[in-house]
Amino acid sequence: MFDGRNSGNSSFSSRGDGRNTPEHELAVHGMNPASSSHGTRRGKQNRTSDMEVMKERFAKLLLGEDMSGGGEGVTSALALSNAITNLADSMFGEHMKLQPMYPETKEIWRKEMNWLLSVVDHIVQFVPSRQMAKNGTFTEIMVTKQRDDLLMNIPALRKLDSVLLETLDNFKDQKDFWYVPREVEDTEKNGDWRRDENWWLPVVKVPSDGLSEESRRLLQNQKDSVAQVLKAATAINASVLSEMRIPDDYIDSLPKNGKTSLGDFLYKSITEENFDPDYFFSFLDLSTEYKVLDLKNRIEASMVIWKRKMNQKEKDGKSQWGSTVSLEKRELFEVRAETILVMLKQQFPGIPQSSLEISKIKNNKDVGQAILESYSRVIESLASKIMSRVEDVLEADILVQRQMMGEAEVRSESEAESAFSSEYEETEKVAAAETPNSRKLSDFIGWRLSSDTKKHSSMSDIEFFHKVEQEKPMMKSPRALPKKFSYLSKLENMRSPSDRH
Amino acid sequence: MFDGRNSGNSSFSSRGDGRNTPEHELAVHGMNPASSSHGTRRGKQNRTSDMEVMKERFAKLLLGEDMSGGGEGVTSALALSNAITNLADSMFGEHMKLQPMYPETKEIWRKEMNWLLSVVDHIVQFVPSRQMAKNGTFTEIMVTKQRDDLLMNIPALRKLDSVLLETLDNFKDQKDFWYVPREVEDTEKNGDWRRDENWWLPVVKVPSDGLSEESRRLLQNQKDSVAQVLKAATAINASVLSEMRIPDDYIDSLPKNGKTSLGDFLYKSITEENFDPDYFFSFLDLSTEYKVLDLKNRIEASMVIWKRKMNQKEKDGKSQWGSTVSLEKRELFEVRAETILVMLKQQFPGIPQSSLEISKIKNNKDVGQAILESYSRVIESLASKIMSRVEDVLEADILVQRQMMGEAEVRSESEAESAFSSEYEETEKVAAAETPNSRKLSDFIGWRLSSDTKKHSSMSDIEFFHKVEQEKPMMKSPRALPKKFSYLSKLENMRSPSDRH
Repeated sequence: MFDGRNSGNSSFSSRGDGRNTPEHELAVHGMNPASSSHGTRRGKQNRTSDMEVMKERFAKLLLGEDMSGGGEGVTSALALSNAITNLADSMFGEHMKLQPMYPETKEIWRKEMNWLLSVVDHIVQFVPSRQMAKNGTFTEIMVTKQRDDLLMNIPALRKLDSVLLETLDNFKDQKDFWYVPREVEDTEKNGDWRRDENWWLPVVKVPSDGLSEESRRLLQNQKDSVAQVLKAATAINASVLSEMRIPDDYIDSLPKNGKTSLGDFLYKSITEENFDPDYFFSFLDLSTEYKVLDLKNRIEASMVIWKRKMNQKEKDGKSQWGSTVSLEKRELFEVRAETILVMLKQQFPGIPQSSLEISKIKNNKDVGQAILESYSRVIESLASKIMSRVEDVLEADILVQRQMMGEAEVRSESEAESAFSSEYEETEKVAAAETPNSRKLSDFIGWRLSSDTKKHSSMSDIEFFHKVEQEKPMMKSPRALPKKFSYLSKLENMRSPSDRH
Repeated sequence: MFDGRNSGNSSFSSRGDGRNTPEHELAVHGMNPASSSHGTRRGKQNRTSDMEVMKERFAKLLLGEDMSGGGEGVTSALALSNAITNLADSMFGEHMKLQPMYPETKEIWRKEMNWLLSVVDHIVQFVPSRQMAKNGTFTEIMVTKQRDDLLMNIPALRKLDSVLLETLDNFKDQKDFWYVPREVEDTEKNGDWRRDENWWLPVVKVPSDGLSEESRRLLQNQKDSVAQVLKAATAINASVLSEMRIPDDYIDSLPKNGKTSLGDFLYKSITEENFDPDYFFSFLDLSTEYKVLDLKNRIEASMVIWKRKMNQKEKDGKSQWGSTVSLEKRELFEVRAETILVMLKQQFPGIPQSSLEISKIKNNKDVGQAILESYSRVIESLASKIMSRVEDVLEADILVQRQMMGEAEVRSESEAESAFSSEYEETEKVAAAETPNSRKLSDFIGWRLSSDTKKHSSMSDIEFFHKVEQEKPMMKSPRALPKKFSYLSKLENMRSPSDRH
């Protein structure tokens, strides 16, 4: 599950200073059941080194990742955000199978997240309260309580976190599927294993007569529960990001108008009389992560431009947009753009942060929001990953069933099958496509979106958007590994300590 | 020793959030010898709560004292500086007697300083090193080591710290002097006890036949050792402060020229043909802390102005000073100003930070320098305080001796007495002055400075300055409580968490 380089070692702790203190070895040391009773020599060592590890974590956070001490590092908000991102990456980055986390890894995750999250315990707001004096009269006084957004969302995220770890634990005793290394699998077939887009994942195997009914139920239940987690974490993340101020840097980097940002084709599509998102997507080449991200960046940029222009107009009382575009139309275009973003988010839950999101995370100074955003992001990412692994098993099961019955028989039966099953056949077809890197987004959308769009074809765009917003259907996620962590590589936060003397 | 409000509770932890978590009670809990063996239930609780206290400390440092979490707090550098200042204040602020610190207080001081100082362990620089390959050849590689200034000064400051605490411990078993509350002492005399400038200090009492020779030796030894600590801590503090950049804010606040900053009298005195520091000081009214500080501020400001003008001139190649003042003269004026500052520092080791120093501390972003500056400042302050308490006892002894022998006899013998003893008589005269609030600095300077200036009357100002610099004599410190901590009250760092939702 882990390679040697990264085994349980949180990367945010070991970067930069080059000392390579094996703190986690110390921290993990003595965690076997025999020494779990407190008061033993080993237990004491363990707690002492916990203090040391914690001190080091916080010291580096205070230095803002600037190990020269010169104070040119990042803000506390970004340091904490990066710490949570990196911790999650080192804990879950190489978790490729449906199986419980190693107890040591789980312990480190729980412990270090508690340290990082402890900061929010001290973020407070003043609220009015009444104090009773000895004579029975009340005085209005101000007391502190934890900030509302944290009071509400941190316990929720902790719950989602533990649901995901329990999900993995639930696969502890299952014997109905197992994993083999990709090499073994492909050597048997004598194929070029690197041609598969998931060549770096182990291959899941099911018995030759398929999964037991019990296993299928377990998988489906876990999938439903993870879907709920994914939905909740995504909602929290989106909400926190939307509350963050749009940084001046980002605004300065924008082109003058939405048309320039979108390009002619996108601009024309969005501003045409009729807009059918399904039809719109069918014309887009979204075969690579880069192309999806580029679309998201362009649409977000144009939305910011439009909103600023509308605000400007309201303030100035004169049109900067041109007299040909009415207020109603502009709102319509915005809703269309928003619809595209929602659909992108649903179809590609694992795409990297957009420029706007990176800019917000990088410039955000609010420690509470930084922790909420990063924690919800890593939960979202882990949920999306577990979802993919569950789907892998279900697909392998379908493949085996099909082989058993023969292609023709499966085809004739497929009409009568449950909606759930046909969904996976759809995906299976996609997975079996010969040129996996040139697939269109419409290939991914699957039956649900198609039926939705058919059902709502008489609706206006706005109605459709609100419908989508309310239902937020959990669609089939593409099989790409969530790359949400990867914004870090763009931020280049680590500064080298400079030689001062 | 401590009043109830502040007993061992580090104020930097309990400010602002109003929750009043009794962490120190938890931390101190179980520190009696019976529970000091690890592995007991109480020992475990103790370590667990240590973790909690440490988490809280670091969390608040990360928030930069902005408990709203909005990231509008101070830098890590200033947060750490304030934390060290406040911790020292709560540990030593009310330590008024020559007696060991309470073990609990000492334990908290040691522990919490270790937490705060742990940050410097991670401040590193790259240095070239050679790595031997398997074939025996060497490759030049870069490795990290702790930054030189920290590597050198932090262990030194830790040593000075422990010397001071040992000094206090050395008075553990002495029975030769004791303290009575000021009220009791003054009620006996029926005087107005508030007229004494040290009315808030307990009164030291010695036996009616004076101290034993052993006690005198102990006191003198401790005084010498504390004097060394004071000298070393002062040197480190001055060196760190001098390395800090002069903030733009400070420069912007300066008047146009040194004459405006100094005022006519000071400017004339410093720029006259002949400058005698002793004569100069005799004309100054330095009766209050405010007046001493004002002098320091004016002189520091004019030195910054002059240095900037000289640099500007070197850069531009033209004079901005006016043609009447030569380069040599300007350097002479600077040396005179520097001499005044050195003398002020020696005479008033406990005066509050100057505007320039506050500005530097407030704007400094270097975490390493922040820790060095604040740690050396609190050590300097504690040393100065212990010094005053030792002198109190020695003075009480002289007073008793004088009473025993009768005034006339003491006078006739005083010529033959040792220099050490006469020094204290000198001070005694000052202390006995009827109007303590209108004393001049020259009253404080005592015999050493007088004899020094006589000895060096044939020297130039520059020679005199260097002489003073080299010798750095430890002169009698005025009896005012060191107020070095007090810059905090000016900084107004604590921000109220704003109601966000």
